[in-house]
Amino acid sequence: MTSYGQSAGEILDRIRKSKPVVHSITNYVVMNSTANVLLAMGASPIMAHAPEEMEDICRISSSLVINIGTLSKPWIESMHLAGRLAAVMKKPYLLDPVGSGATKLRTDTAVRLIESSLPNVIRGNASEILSLSPQGATTRGVDSVHSMEDAVDAARTVSRSLGTVIAVTGERDLVTDGERSLIVSGGHPLMGYVTGTGCAASVIIGAFLAEEKDSVVATAAALAFFGLAAERAAAVENKPGSFWIRVLDELYAVTPDELARKTRVSEA
Amino acid sequence: MTSYGQSAGEILDRIRKSKPVVHSITNYVVMNSTANVLLAMGASPIMAHAPEEMEDICRISSSLVINIGTLSKPWIESMHLAGRLAAVMKKPYLLDPVGSGATKLRTDTAVRLIESSLPNVIRGNASEILSLSPQGATTRGVDSVHSMEDAVDAARTVSRSLGTVIAVTGERDLVTDGERSLIVSGGHPLMGYVTGTGCAASVIIGAFLAEEKDSVVATAAALAFFGLAAERAAAVENKPGSFWIRVLDELYAVTPDELARKTRVSEA
Amino acid sequence: MTSYGQSAGEILDRIRKSKPVVHSITNYVVMNSTANVLLAMGASPIMAHAPEEMEDICRISSSLVINIGTLSKPWIESMHLAGRLAAVMKKPYLLDPVGSGATKLRTDTAVRLIESSLPNVIRGNASEILSLSPQGATTRGVDSVHSMEDAVDAARTVSRSLGTVIAVTGERDLVTDGERSLIVSGGHPLMGYVTGTGCAASVIIGAFLAEEKDSVVATAAALAFFGLAAERAAAVENKPGSFWIRVLDELYAVTPDELARKTRVSEA
Repeated sequence: MTSYGQSAGEILDRIRKSKPVVHSITNYVVMNSTANVLLAMGASPIMAHAPEEMEDICRISSSLVINIGTLSKPWIESMHLAGRLAAVMKKPYLLDPVGSGATKLRTDTAVRLIESSLPNVIRGNASEILSLSPQGATTRGVDSVHSMEDAVDAARTVSRSLGTVIAVTGERDLVTDGERSLIVSGGHPLMGYVTGTGCAASVIIGAFLAEEKDSVVATAAALAFFGLAAERAAAVENKPGSFWIRVLDELYAVTPDELARKTRVSEA
Repeated sequence: MTSYGQSAGEILDRIRKSKPVVHSITNYVVMNSTANVLLAMGASPIMAHAPEEMEDICRISSSLVINIGTLSKPWIESMHLAGRLAAVMKKPYLLDPVGSGATKLRTDTAVRLIESSLPNVIRGNASEILSLSPQGATTRGVDSVHSMEDAVDAARTVSRSLGTVIAVTGERDLVTDGERSLIVSGGHPLMGYVTGTGCAASVIIGAFLAEEKDSVVATAAALAFFGLAAERAAAVENKPGSFWIRVLDELYAVTPDELARKTRVSEA
Repeated sequence: MTSYGQSAGEILDRIRKSKPVVHSITNYVVMNSTANVLLAMGASPIMAHAPEEMEDICRISSSLVINIGTLSKPWIESMHLAGRLAAVMKKPYLLDPVGSGATKLRTDTAVRLIESSLPNVIRGNASEILSLSPQGATTRGVDSVHSMEDAVDAARTVSRSLGTVIAVTGERDLVTDGERSLIVSGGHPLMGYVTGTGCAASVIIGAFLAEEKDSVVATAAALAFFGLAAERAAAVENKPGSFWIRVLDELYAVTPDELARKTRVSEA
């Protein structure tokens, strides 16, 4: 067991005991599935987007997850408000920039959210993360990232220029604050045949951030936990519908001890 | 078989034969799962929130369920319109005040909906129901409700002051119109690890109200039906993802005869 | 193996290889399930409704599916914009007129969408399709369609008057461009106990349209594929919750060869 494994087990144990409230402003597609992810693992989801109740919701929440998957103007305003409230109330806040780089609206929204209230963690795939790079910080596109070393370099550059923890999820996951960089193994290719697995990773990180102040450690632990649940599910189900139901089962079933033993996190 | 069991079986039989249309204005998180609940049990869901079609929808519906889980201003206006139309067209109407008491917006919205068109039934957990108590009707908070007797007293007080049937769901469920009070047994702790189980209870009551004029009897029967389906599901699945899929299966499989025999409703 | 079977297998093979991006503007109830349908079968869903990103989304999409299940004014405007962009950019476009005929808002919205940008295919049940008939094109209501021959006649009339391919799904499915008319066998009555099966058929057609220019052939192939997956699911699961999960599994598992052999399409 590594010290990262031990930390991961301890954070999961705290989540199961304190059932932190994770506030999500997220896309319509994954609301049901990410609420189920949080409940299955032992956390408490709240989904709310009305500006009129944002302050009340922020006060009773332990962390905030903003996901820009199905944007519209009123929702963007609510996201800005929630981000600012999280900053003021010192609640950890994760941004999932779904589709940033694919449309101007998404890239602009992600960039402005980062400017108006810096998230503790930004999680995306490689192209989403590279799209957030301030002009000049990186001149390379996604296609030029050919190896894990290249990916680590690019993520570090984005992390340093934005001043926040970056998580790049893919075949292996990468977490960096610009100095420390961790590589997390786990997961399964079937995740690509189910909607909202990236969004699920984000809310799981949201729950871990609620119980661990070191954002790099919390993020790596959350990704190790999700990856382990997915691997266990894929060991018994090899098609996407049944696989996802089993992932929910495993998020409930994985114990802190198992997570501690099976976390595979290494320094990059 | 009690007379409550017999009624429950007869109502379920009528639902399976007439497939009543249940109109829901509900939260984004549970739309898919509550539509599946209604279809699996043999009813017909309609989800619609545009004011322009509210009158047409109300006319073809047999009952209305309003759930305030993910509010915004335009949706609140639609809820008021739907409630008033249900009153005018004499369609039974249930209110699910999700999160009332947790934010001012939710409490105010629930209270104003009750004022503008009195629901036939309000279903919530203990804290949601207590938050609806008119000032002075109860001075006790949720934490002071220590026994089923206390809960019955509190629910009766709210029911009398609002003039409507109250259903408080929890480990055991309680249904009261201020005079008659029924306790319904059933369900399983795994329901706490799945999103939308309370919302599912609400739409099932909505379907039962469409086929039974006595709201206390209809509500208790619906909760007995849902509790039985959950117990049967939990007998074969002990993790939340698989459990919920099995609940949908059992809502389809439970027969009116089985429901009649296994309904456990007692007078408080 | 018929030539229709061969075509169906070849289109599925192309989908699995090129993973076409299918843009949906759809109802809240089915967003999660139709995204999962597209991913399981090997396509790539995008859900987006903001007018600000519609042009960017249209540019990166291979086809468009508009579904009017939970309308509101801003969404109707986005649907018009997306339809016009699809016409300009020559992307195939399917309209699913959910509930047309049931409310004036839905009928009007469907009719106006057809006027503002003619879809390549319209898929609905018999009553939805008949509601789209221009005044006088058919004087018969749904109840007067007593046989498959009547249904073929009615669908042909609507197809000719609108100038687009019509798909009427039911116990057997019917696809016509006014000249050629195909009947597709497959499916299972359990589909009536799950929400969004019609909407699932629509997005599957959307994926097939992305890879086959002959809209009649693409639509019949898509319906044969969905029907085969449903039959295979129903062969092992006889209750709606488990059945639907298994349908997702089968959409992933059915091979192009199996589809080619088992497609049952006949000329009407």
